[in-house]
Amino acid sequence: MNVGDLKIEGVDQNKRPLYQEIIDQKTKPKGSLGYLEEVALRLALMRGSESISLSRPHMLVFAADHGIAQDGVSAYPSEVTAQMVLNFVGGGAAINVLCKQNNIELQVVDAGVNFDFDENLPIRHRKIAKGSKSFLSAKAMTEDECKQAITTGAELVNSLHAAGSNTIAFGEMGIGNTSSASCLMHMITHIDLAKCTGRGAGLNDEQFKNKFKVLEKAIQFHHLGSDEPFEILQTFGGFEIAMIVGAILEAARLQMTIIIDGFIIGSAVLIAHSLHLDILDFCIFSHLSDESGHKLLLEYLGVKPLLNLGMRLGEGSAAALALPIIQAAANFFNDMASFADAGVSNRS
Amino acid sequence: MNVGDLKIEGVDQNKRPLYQEIIDQKTKPKGSLGYLEEVALRLALMRGSESISLSRPHMLVFAADHGIAQDGVSAYPSEVTAQMVLNFVGGGAAINVLCKQNNIELQVVDAGVNFDFDENLPIRHRKIAKGSKSFLSAKAMTEDECKQAITTGAELVNSLHAAGSNTIAFGEMGIGNTSSASCLMHMITHIDLAKCTGRGAGLNDEQFKNKFKVLEKAIQFHHLGSDEPFEILQTFGGFEIAMIVGAILEAARLQMTIIIDGFIIGSAVLIAHSLHLDILDFCIFSHLSDESGHKLLLEYLGVKPLLNLGMRLGEGSAAALALPIIQAAANFFNDMASFADAGVSNRS
Repeated sequence: MNVGDLKIEGVDQNKRPLYQEIIDQKTKPKGSLGYLEEVALRLALMRGSESISLSRPHMLVFAADHGIAQDGVSAYPSEVTAQMVLNFVGGGAAINVLCKQNNIELQVVDAGVNFDFDENLPIRHRKIAKGSKSFLSAKAMTEDECKQAITTGAELVNSLHAAGSNTIAFGEMGIGNTSSASCLMHMITHIDLAKCTGRGAGLNDEQFKNKFKVLEKAIQFHHLGSDEPFEILQTFGGFEIAMIVGAILEAARLQMTIIIDGFIIGSAVLIAHSLHLDILDFCIFSHLSDESGHKLLLEYLGVKPLLNLGMRLGEGSAAALALPIIQAAANFFNDMASFADAGVSNRS
Repeated sequence: MNVGDLKIEGVDQNKRPLYQEIIDQKTKPKGSLGYLEEVALRLALMRGSESISLSRPHMLVFAADHGIAQDGVSAYPSEVTAQMVLNFVGGGAAINVLCKQNNIELQVVDAGVNFDFDENLPIRHRKIAKGSKSFLSAKAMTEDECKQAITTGAELVNSLHAAGSNTIAFGEMGIGNTSSASCLMHMITHIDLAKCTGRGAGLNDEQFKNKFKVLEKAIQFHHLGSDEPFEILQTFGGFEIAMIVGAILEAARLQMTIIIDGFIIGSAVLIAHSLHLDILDFCIFSHLSDESGHKLLLEYLGVKPLLNLGMRLGEGSAAALALPIIQAAANFFNDMASFADAGVSNRS
């Protein structure tokens, strides 16, 4: 797959007035459902239909280890990546609880965890390698590894779509991956690295200072001359992030609704968006993360989040939490009566 | 019922460290679920239990007409109140769609609509009178009417609680009722009337100017010397708002979880809170309304809303929309694994 050559078509903006009129004729003051109305309009555009279905919503959680985690950038040891994958399998993590509540089918993908999982566990075994290399002294992935990860992400989405899903969200688990995301954001947006770097899972002041120094050094070490998104991804990304890039691209190509989680998934959106601007037509941004940098990331993309609850967990948790809000937008669009249907007087 | 004499006991704050420890031992970085963690803690305190149930959530939508609506304060004619009640009964309004989606049992209460509804319709027929008087030239309710409304609201909640509900939300429908709410807010908080007054369902500049003049005149006309919340309610309230005051007080007395909608319900909270400060222990504020004044109302109470989606519909719509978020807080508290249970390393 040559990711730049994918054919991704944006939504048909000509249908906007038609869907807006449907919304304005619902029995409510015009505009009174606020941002829900914009979400409904966008969902209708994604479907190209006056009836919005969100079919078989899925959550794909991609997990991988990061070489950079050995360089003192994280509050947790690397082993936690594998431990949390087992926690996902056991049903005990936040993402399990949220997916169960909101009827989201959850799949966990081993994109590159430094652990040998039992083959019989309900995991999509797609390990590229046992963790990426530390980008402090090498590219995180080889060109082939990065390509393979992108293709794998796309294939996983394609098979879910073939099975009847038109709504998808992505989550991630990978100790050290906010470091990747910060570098990706800096390289794509050219926003100061300091503004792209946060405390991840909870660094104290000293640890945070160290993380920033490590990332600064890594950026200088590679001294990438180009803005080429694939090279940026290969250099600073991770296996889970590369798979998510491929997954986003394929989901957009298939005109699925993509519910975007927080900072890490946001960094994958930046890469995918650099390759294909039209992917944004299919993305709904679930929340503003408490991770420093996410606000600027959303502003760079020109998008507005649904929720602002000070969350910074990852795993896809905010995307799963936001699904009922998105479903509510679809439902009012589909099911509310119009002024004419209900015999309610509209304003004079 | 003498509303001032009700015995309302706040939650047992001594249990806070116990519930906080449960939250902190869940397999996630400390604090990473953000405001959901605070909601979970508060729900546990309301229940006084290490397991949070939200049983048989109900939505009571109270409808009434307002004499003040004849004085040019609303963008819609008064007839819309009754029309919308029939729309609720027919299932076509936003609140129907949202309650259905989130498994909230919906009841519509005729608190004082200026219309003779068929007795056989699924409406709780509790009409006090066919609309309140215009408070431009009289008290909106007699003392007896206001008391009767408060008692009725309390009785309705009491019967739902007896049937096994521990979670309740209130909605309202009443053309003209943002005018009542603005006056109640001004009288209770002493915030400038201008800052308490908004565009309701969508007034234009000229209509808005007129609404403000009418309210200013009404405040001057009554010239209430006291801060006595009952008198303020009787003077500027409406039948639906008075019932909601009684409903909130009774729900708090029964230690139910009360999901608070927007500006109108907020004005009822102000009255109830003036009578019993401890009611706030049981209230979760679902959203920041786009109605001007609501932000200051929430600040006055010192509370933080869950959602900020630019909604200004009423009916209880935001409370219904927020239920899955509140349920998510309960679910993570109940169902997530601890670090010890899941064998996940906590940070060093």
